[in-house]
Amino acid sequence: MADPTGLQLRSLIKKSGELEISLKRIAIPEPGADEVVVRVEGTPINPSDLGLLTGPADPASFKSTGSGDDVVVTAKVPEAALAGLAARLDESMPVGNEGAGVVIKAGSSAAAQALNGKMVAMIGGAMYAQYRVLKVAECLPLPDGATAADGASCFVNPLTSLGMTETMRREGHKALVHTAAASNLGQMLNRICLKDGIGLVNIVRSAEQAKILRDIGAKHVVDSTAPSFMNDLTAALVETGATIAFDAIGGGKLAGQILNAMEAAINKTASTYSRYGSNVHKQVYIYGGLDVRPTELSRGFGMAWGIGGWLLFPFLQKVGPETGHKLRQRVVAELKTTFASHYTKVVSLQEALQLDNLAAYNKRATGEKFLINPNK
Amino acid sequence: MADPTGLQLRSLIKKSGELEISLKRIAIPEPGADEVVVRVEGTPINPSDLGLLTGPADPASFKSTGSGDDVVVTAKVPEAALAGLAARLDESMPVGNEGAGVVIKAGSSAAAQALNGKMVAMIGGAMYAQYRVLKVAECLPLPDGATAADGASCFVNPLTSLGMTETMRREGHKALVHTAAASNLGQMLNRICLKDGIGLVNIVRSAEQAKILRDIGAKHVVDSTAPSFMNDLTAALVETGATIAFDAIGGGKLAGQILNAMEAAINKTASTYSRYGSNVHKQVYIYGGLDVRPTELSRGFGMAWGIGGWLLFPFLQKVGPETGHKLRQRVVAELKTTFASHYTKVVSLQEALQLDNLAAYNKRATGEKFLINPNK
Repeated sequence: MADPTGLQLRSLIKKSGELEISLKRIAIPEPGADEVVVRVEGTPINPSDLGLLTGPADPASFKSTGSGDDVVVTAKVPEAALAGLAARLDESMPVGNEGAGVVIKAGSSAAAQALNGKMVAMIGGAMYAQYRVLKVAECLPLPDGATAADGASCFVNPLTSLGMTETMRREGHKALVHTAAASNLGQMLNRICLKDGIGLVNIVRSAEQAKILRDIGAKHVVDSTAPSFMNDLTAALVETGATIAFDAIGGGKLAGQILNAMEAAINKTASTYSRYGSNVHKQVYIYGGLDVRPTELSRGFGMAWGIGGWLLFPFLQKVGPETGHKLRQRVVAELKTTFASHYTKVVSLQEALQLDNLAAYNKRATGEKFLINPNK
Repeated sequence: MADPTGLQLRSLIKKSGELEISLKRIAIPEPGADEVVVRVEGTPINPSDLGLLTGPADPASFKSTGSGDDVVVTAKVPEAALAGLAARLDESMPVGNEGAGVVIKAGSSAAAQALNGKMVAMIGGAMYAQYRVLKVAECLPLPDGATAADGASCFVNPLTSLGMTETMRREGHKALVHTAAASNLGQMLNRICLKDGIGLVNIVRSAEQAKILRDIGAKHVVDSTAPSFMNDLTAALVETGATIAFDAIGGGKLAGQILNAMEAAINKTASTYSRYGSNVHKQVYIYGGLDVRPTELSRGFGMAWGIGGWLLFPFLQKVGPETGHKLRQRVVAELKTTFASHYTKVVSLQEALQLDNLAAYNKRATGEKFLINPNK
């Protein structure tokens, strides 16, 4: 490595309520015995990254100053949101959950040396950077011929979608519902469910999104903007028997509509009336917040129900390392099929800070997915 | 028994959307070997009974025709609510979860004969009636000197409040929050928590309700109508460490406010920022619906959270008969202390159908509690 420094993207929210995104040149430390230095060549912008990168900043307030490596993007964070951010205020934070790249330097251990020159996928944060030093255990060696783009999204979406079907089974459900279902993650979940023979009800927000899913073989696709939405959803729930949902939207009425449709589907076969509703437990897990408005539940679904947050890392902790290893091995084995990701645009670190790009990925629009190549 | 018939209250919702409450004269069957006939002398009107008695009928539409035993009350059920009632439409339903009275006839078994002439508490529905035939196992013999009023509310409120502290322990929490906390149930829960040394945050909706609780020794009372509500609640949560709540309100913003205050309380001691919020699980169980509006959650409480329905009978099934027996024995032992109920009015079956009484108990107002004495 001729230059022992590299650029790293930073997000800072000041106590004054100003968000500041910038690039810092940082030194690349020598790797420890069990560590490697990776030249990051692909790192996706997932909704989970935007929580840290732009947070609750007002999208209308983004401004840019400076240019090249010295570009600084600023925006305003509404005062009401600052209380919830207390622990990160005035602290400059690196961003980027996962990525992939080439090992350009390895520590002295045999395990580290074995990775030298290899393309690896990585998890562990601070991936929006030209170089990343990390432990061998945080790397997943990719098969020969895999590119950084192939491996950049190896963890979050693949393990999240596998985590959904795993959670479904562990909690005693036989089929599931997914919202924002035409997303990269949603398409992955469809491929998993088709392969594993699991009933999946896909909820989308437009006819175009419905077509994306039908074109990849999805059996149950329901458009929440159609006037017949509740009837369509109930019919799909009767057919699949789905009583658990994973919801990326979070805000608005959708989570409650899903519970109400589940209850209606269950009651179509009920023989006796209970004023407390059916005794079949109906569950919605909110794993994203594409709609930041409040969640509104019109409680017509009896008393056997639950809503809660769902996150990949607590899930992996709960299922333990053996199951986690099994899931990761499946991802590598099906990297170019079940778990293939598609990107609409590849940008450099500097380009990621251009206001037009920022506005595009910050919208979290289905079908739009950015990949950063910090060494582009 | 000179007259082998008795009056029974019935609630009927017709497919046309009309609610009809009336009194029917029904024959009292001979008790089986393991059964007894009880002359019902006290049966409370709990919120859980109103779900079946008046359901979602429009309170402004109640009308009365006829008089005496032939009185009929009618009201309109909004069309939107009919779908959820499909299984009870056009079926005349008896009402009343629990009650107490004197065994006036007993089956041939020794267990039944042992109850003859005794005052018993009962669970099993259809208690808004002059006589009730039921199995010995559904009766709980009351201590000598206990009146029907003492024993009428022996099951629902006592076991529900004990179920709350039991659930708190089983799910790993150390203190709890309760809403509509000045209710009969809330006062009971306070007595349990004071006796058992459990931290309890009481949320009430007026200064008068706060006084009721302070007068019985409640330590943490927070008024949701006060401008300082969120600060007061957060402070009480910091003091108690409560991370589970039981909410009788259901609708509006309260459940979400509780989760947000729990998260703020937890974060007061957090040392590092996580964009997903604290990793401490925060839970709200909705066990009532005093506010029938949608539940509105402003999700500022991270991802480690859950909301769900909570009901006594599924809880008792989950914990099993041994725990259930232990809880019931505690209720009998502390019937006139911890588990004492107070009634604002005692009415006959006919009086329960008078529009002024109906309007009063149908309001589900805290502090107002009706007891029906069908043999008044």
